[in-house]
Amino acid sequence: MTKLLKGKPVADALSESIRNDVQHWQEKKIQPTLTLIRAGEKADDMAYERAIIKRCDSVGVKVISEVVPENISQDDFYKVLDRHNGDAGVHGILVFRPLPKHLKEEEVQYRIAPAKDVDGFHPVNAGKLLTGDPTAFAPCTPMAVMEILKHYEVTLSGKRALVLGRSMVVGKPVALLLLAENATVTVAHSRTQDLDQVASEADILVAAIGKSEFVKTNYIKPGAIVADVGINVDEDGRLKGDVEAAAAEDKAEAYTPVPGGVGSVTTAVLAKQVLKACALQNKQ
Amino acid sequence: MTKLLKGKPVADALSESIRNDVQHWQEKKIQPTLTLIRAGEKADDMAYERAIIKRCDSVGVKVISEVVPENISQDDFYKVLDRHNGDAGVHGILVFRPLPKHLKEEEVQYRIAPAKDVDGFHPVNAGKLLTGDPTAFAPCTPMAVMEILKHYEVTLSGKRALVLGRSMVVGKPVALLLLAENATVTVAHSRTQDLDQVASEADILVAAIGKSEFVKTNYIKPGAIVADVGINVDEDGRLKGDVEAAAAEDKAEAYTPVPGGVGSVTTAVLAKQVLKACALQNKQ
Repeated sequence: MTKLLKGKPVADALSESIRNDVQHWQEKKIQPTLTLIRAGEKADDMAYERAIIKRCDSVGVKVISEVVPENISQDDFYKVLDRHNGDAGVHGILVFRPLPKHLKEEEVQYRIAPAKDVDGFHPVNAGKLLTGDPTAFAPCTPMAVMEILKHYEVTLSGKRALVLGRSMVVGKPVALLLLAENATVTVAHSRTQDLDQVASEADILVAAIGKSEFVKTNYIKPGAIVADVGINVDEDGRLKGDVEAAAAEDKAEAYTPVPGGVGSVTTAVLAKQVLKACALQNKQ
Repeated sequence: MTKLLKGKPVADALSESIRNDVQHWQEKKIQPTLTLIRAGEKADDMAYERAIIKRCDSVGVKVISEVVPENISQDDFYKVLDRHNGDAGVHGILVFRPLPKHLKEEEVQYRIAPAKDVDGFHPVNAGKLLTGDPTAFAPCTPMAVMEILKHYEVTLSGKRALVLGRSMVVGKPVALLLLAENATVTVAHSRTQDLDQVASEADILVAAIGKSEFVKTNYIKPGAIVADVGINVDEDGRLKGDVEAAAAEDKAEAYTPVPGGVGSVTTAVLAKQVLKACALQNKQ
């Protein structure tokens, strides 16, 4: 029977471990703390913020919510960011993206302190990810995919993994993380020829192409493990993944559902990255 | 008939174009300049240095050779590096690696000015390469592979490319550069299962595994384009690639010879990167 790789047990296990870590730091009079910086009142940002706060509350990570006007100047934005960069009581900083258009994201990304950059925004963290530096922070969604594969003990070493999509928030980082686990990694995308055939060679298929139910039965190798990163809303307002659920059910050995899969692990990963930042900043 | 993708015509064409660029800058009273920093007297470094100086002389790029004692302290090494970082007359800096063991390469890499880092040493340049930032500097060898493929008008978009090897000096950067050209890119390595079969699916095969004549006839798809990055010295002192020449001759449509292939393009690529650095530093 096809197995569902649900996110909740993964998030629960991570949360349990994070709670222990938080306690360890609190005993040393250090309170792991995350600053969230949000410009304006975008519904997506606010929903993610609520989910982060809920998760962090449940594990004992303190959250500082810094809300600035949507029309804030870049200099004023830097003042807010710099204050948290320089605050030794803040271990992690997440800036909600995309930023309002007048703020130059390609400049702002260089302003966040790399050591507090728990969402992998600064290019130096991308560089560390590429070089395999263990102090790297990768974005939370690719890390969530890896946590799910690890939790369910999916063998990666030597296996063929296919990443569908090459964005900086999912495709490229997850490809590097799979490579670091000794998978043989292929990155495919909209320009790939014979995409269904290429995909169907993969033991592990990570779909992050952002197209609702794009992956059909002919894309999936029988017995493959499928991680679906897509979050698409259909015309009836229902959430759909990048993978047709019936296809995964039919062909895969196991797959992450949408909703209830990858997306439900990201806030736990974020809290875990705050603890990693805290540990790196308080090394003896 | 199997075609040889020789490096010399590529290096010659690059050199011609660089000479024009140098002239353009000289007319503006700017002399494109590269600093080479070498610690000690390693034969490999000195051979590479001679080749760089010869190429740069031929295209009009000025070279400053900075030779420091092999036992130099990290602080003194930084003083030398900082002087060239801060010298507006120096556009590019190459530090010969590996550095002597007592110098911490993982710290030194952060000290080179990213804008002058023409050999892609600083992690921020790795990050820019990953994000696709056009101001990135990639290491010279992967860039040489790309220049050869471009010169001989090899179609990359939509094609399957296999990179054998995942080092930071060749494998990972060349994979990203191929991906940026819309190839479907697979990175394979020593842990890959059924490596010959995986390799033989590739329209473009880049061998950078550092094992003499590792790629045999069963690794090569009939009609593939093969780029051989290997430089291995056999027991008779002859240079051998990572690909068995007879296998490439037998199966490939075209391949880069060793010697006379990728290796003969790297110094021209380095000179080209100095001109890129010069242009970025003198933007109007």
